[in-house]
Amino acid sequence: MKHLDLLARLARPAESKIVLLVLDGLGDLACAAQPQTALELARTPNLDALAGRASLGRIVPVATGVTPGSGPGHLALFGYDPAADENDIGRGVLEALGLGLTLGPGDVAARGNFATADAAGNLSDRRAGRIPTEECRRVCARLNAALAGVEGARLEVVPGEAHRFVLLLRGDDLSAAVDDTDPQRLGVPPLEARETAPAGAATAALVRRAVATMERAIAGEPKANRVLLRGFSRLPHLPQMGELYRLRLGAFAGYPLYRGVAWACGMEVVPCGKRIGEILDTVTARWNDFDFFFLHVKQTDQAGEDGDLAAKAAVIEEVDRELPRLLALAPEVLAITGDHSTPAPMKAHSFHPVPLLLAAPIAFTDGAARFDERSAAVGHLGTFPSRDLMGLLLAHAGRLEKYGA
Amino acid sequence: MKHLDLLARLARPAESKIVLLVLDGLGDLACAAQPQTALELARTPNLDALAGRASLGRIVPVATGVTPGSGPGHLALFGYDPAADENDIGRGVLEALGLGLTLGPGDVAARGNFATADAAGNLSDRRAGRIPTEECRRVCARLNAALAGVEGARLEVVPGEAHRFVLLLRGDDLSAAVDDTDPQRLGVPPLEARETAPAGAATAALVRRAVATMERAIAGEPKANRVLLRGFSRLPHLPQMGELYRLRLGAFAGYPLYRGVAWACGMEVVPCGKRIGEILDTVTARWNDFDFFFLHVKQTDQAGEDGDLAAKAAVIEEVDRELPRLLALAPEVLAITGDHSTPAPMKAHSFHPVPLLLAAPIAFTDGAARFDERSAAVGHLGTFPSRDLMGLLLAHAGRLEKYGA
Repeated sequence: MKHLDLLARLARPAESKIVLLVLDGLGDLACAAQPQTALELARTPNLDALAGRASLGRIVPVATGVTPGSGPGHLALFGYDPAADENDIGRGVLEALGLGLTLGPGDVAARGNFATADAAGNLSDRRAGRIPTEECRRVCARLNAALAGVEGARLEVVPGEAHRFVLLLRGDDLSAAVDDTDPQRLGVPPLEARETAPAGAATAALVRRAVATMERAIAGEPKANRVLLRGFSRLPHLPQMGELYRLRLGAFAGYPLYRGVAWACGMEVVPCGKRIGEILDTVTARWNDFDFFFLHVKQTDQAGEDGDLAAKAAVIEEVDRELPRLLALAPEVLAITGDHSTPAPMKAHSFHPVPLLLAAPIAFTDGAARFDERSAAVGHLGTFPSRDLMGLLLAHAGRLEKYGA
Repeated sequence: MKHLDLLARLARPAESKIVLLVLDGLGDLACAAQPQTALELARTPNLDALAGRASLGRIVPVATGVTPGSGPGHLALFGYDPAADENDIGRGVLEALGLGLTLGPGDVAARGNFATADAAGNLSDRRAGRIPTEECRRVCARLNAALAGVEGARLEVVPGEAHRFVLLLRGDDLSAAVDDTDPQRLGVPPLEARETAPAGAATAALVRRAVATMERAIAGEPKANRVLLRGFSRLPHLPQMGELYRLRLGAFAGYPLYRGVAWACGMEVVPCGKRIGEILDTVTARWNDFDFFFLHVKQTDQAGEDGDLAAKAAVIEEVDRELPRLLALAPEVLAITGDHSTPAPMKAHSFHPVPLLLAAPIAFTDGAARFDERSAAVGHLGTFPSRDLMGLLLAHAGRLEKYGA
């Protein structure tokens, strides 16, 4: 039996509450270039005390050695196999979720870049000089006016940051089997949209008409005079977490991408601020409405991507200061972990296992002095795939029936 | 997605170099019969210093509790699932590789024993009194002269050690679906070659003619007057490592079996000596030609099979003395491990996990005082299947793309 099917079969309702606090990119590295990790560097008296009465371990998001993007990293935390094709969140969809858009089951999304072409039609800048976001909004408005005249589907562009936008196609019988139009190099024209399978032929033809319409509308722009499209995709049919696990789930995330992934998995997205204090304000206000609380703190990852160990440690200290408020809510199960590691010396996501702390009345007490990568590596929970975490949370919450007699 | 497919999808070229140093049968046992393992007994100042700045862990070659042969042990190190039928290297093929033979995709190989039968045709010695190797060569020459007259394929026997040889069948439409002719007991005649599936009928008939021809040619031999055949097999269609991982791979092994397995996986086999010093001479000379270097030291396993702990420790000390030369080449990633354990008290391969040391700029520093079974058991890399090692090596070498956005 597949792991999710097993959990779905065993899941039972209960009164217990579960909090999954994700510090994005939490895991860090002790190596020649950086002797201490962010967790080791941070002063965290509250986390230390919690570690002493919790179980520690580590989770592997996708597979040994594989560095996950944010989509697969979170899908795994929510119990899905992130490497299964049917759970793949395409780049266009992820970008749309990151802009806070919701997608219907038939909708197709592509990630767009504005680009600059010369008089001969060859690309001279694949990012249109990284035009300001306001300029992107203005040009997108021109595109939307022009796209209103294209027949065959409802087409819309939604501006993102700088030169980025999302193209949404809504209609019947659309297909995501359309190849990228970005040639990934300069000195050549953009590619024509082509189907990657016969089922995509009609949608590819629609995209060609849409691109021609858009490019006529912006031909006079000095920079943003061409569009490049990538990652045509549809929302995957993810089994919804509420039915799977028999939980009422709330997502408390300050950034659209994480709200979007949680929404796609069946959580109710609760509007909230970006910092842990603001998030906890909202969680406290909605404490009676959910059984499962997904809390997402983004700033650990941002500091890691900046290579700023001190800033990453400072975010952890901020979480530590707020931790007593979370503990005062008295969830039966509290897990603190990350969707992946973002070691400061690498300034990027990495493949390293992610430390995990799990506190619950029936969690085996490790008695660790601190919560960090070293104590997690020898913790009672061991090192296991992230997609097994949901089962562990449900188990500690008394929310799984015995298997067999 | 299967693990190899995932790695193949993510693998990207880079400048980094990877060295996989396999000390055959490295893992050992601390138990009532032997208080210290070979790694614990050996004086290894260079390995100790390297351990302090490396990640340690353990690998499980096939499955928990399963003792691997050399073929599966190495296939797993190279990233293949050694328990998958499609990766099975049959006994005949393994024996052929061990004799340094290369096999085409259609060739069939069987392992042969000379045997002795009495006047009634019943086996009296299944190993023909372990005739000397020179005698084996002489009798094989007679077989080859006789086999030249057999039609339907090109048949050849290649002498091995003592009573052992390999029968090679080269031709079109051959099948490996032929059963053993060795009855595995005395007092009965050898079995007739029979197909194990309808597709093997023609090849089984060919083998019966070949056996009859061979046994007529040696009927007058006092000892080696019958042949027993086992393990009819073809080279499995292994995905080639160069394409899979986007690496140029060189195998530096002093013994034919390991060269053969590496060749079957797509490595370039570089002729070299048997001891670590000779191997490093060749590696140094060819340093610019490869991205991935498989170095194989056999003597640890030989000492383990002899039950000679001191000899095994001495081989490890020999490797330790040469280690600075390897470190001076400055590979980005250096892994030191074994294909399996060969504990001296057991005088045989065993199922025990194999210690692993992985040094790289982005390896999490364990800070262990030594590299041995005990420090490896609590190391940062944890205990994981050997077939996941390749992904970990590629990851530490910066040779894997991020999975998903």
